[in-house]
Amino acid sequence: MATEHGSDPDSSLHQDQCWLLLRSSDTGRLGVVVDGEPDIFPVTFVVDHATIVFRTAPGTKLTAALVSPAVAFEVDGVDPHSGEAWSVVVKGHAEEIKQLYDLLDTTVLPLFPWHRGSKHRFVRIVAEDVTGRRFQVADRVSWYAPFIDARRCAPD
Amino acid sequence: MATEHGSDPDSSLHQDQCWLLLRSSDTGRLGVVVDGEPDIFPVTFVVDHATIVFRTAPGTKLTAALVSPAVAFEVDGVDPHSGEAWSVVVKGHAEEIKQLYDLLDTTVLPLFPWHRGSKHRFVRIVAEDVTGRRFQVADRVSWYAPFIDARRCAPD
Repeated sequence: MATEHGSDPDSSLHQDQCWLLLRSSDTGRLGVVVDGEPDIFPVTFVVDHATIVFRTAPGTKLTAALVSPAVAFEVDGVDPHSGEAWSVVVKGHAEEIKQLYDLLDTTVLPLFPWHRGSKHRFVRIVAEDVTGRRFQVADRVSWYAPFIDARRCAPD
Repeated sequence: MATEHGSDPDSSLHQDQCWLLLRSSDTGRLGVVVDGEPDIFPVTFVVDHATIVFRTAPGTKLTAALVSPAVAFEVDGVDPHSGEAWSVVVKGHAEEIKQLYDLLDTTVLPLFPWHRGSKHRFVRIVAEDVTGRRFQVADRVSWYAPFIDARRCAPD
């Protein structure tokens, strides 16, 4: 995955392809800014209409998502048919879901975990920008090798 | 992966475990801050001593890594034996590797791709903080269900 999103329009994905790929996944990485510095958390999620919903406990991740001026949510994978990798990045802002009716008003609903106490909190990422790319996975063997081989390839 | 890193010391990983897991992986996600907002890029990488090295082309990702005041690099996976998930986050700063001798002075070396022109650039993330956690993967079925089932579980 050596290519970056956004730099090659030929490999860009349409919005509907991006959401299809997001819906096909259940794990993504939440990128936040806390005190001016980045942090990343893996999260399991569901797509609810054009938003990302995930569950968390009070603590670092919840605080970071809510205090971050914006969030980035990245999901990637490899197409088993084409062998191509893909990456979709949702940029937007995070909101805590506090209203039961907001929770219920979803097609695929993160169920309130009644039997597990009150620690669970729900966060919705409202998408403001969605970009995606497909790209060839870099052949790892072709771009690194043990030092002893590197010396053989290096110029005198 | 519903638990966040850093909030439960019982599940924290030691530094050596974190580096072992990083060395066992080849794909991670680079988190940066550009104009105060987060962005995430998937990258293939190698561990070189206590640094992360990845290759990229000039463009968004390279610029973002170098202008970001700090970077976060996250790698995760699932232990096939225990079934537990793990996540390691390296925080530090990114430097472009420009000296051939710096490139050569590695145990596992990203080889300079002579045959692919001059577009390839190498970035090293110098670790200033490494944290890792193991945690039980949330059973997705247990925390969400289609709306129709949710309605059945909701109180009147």
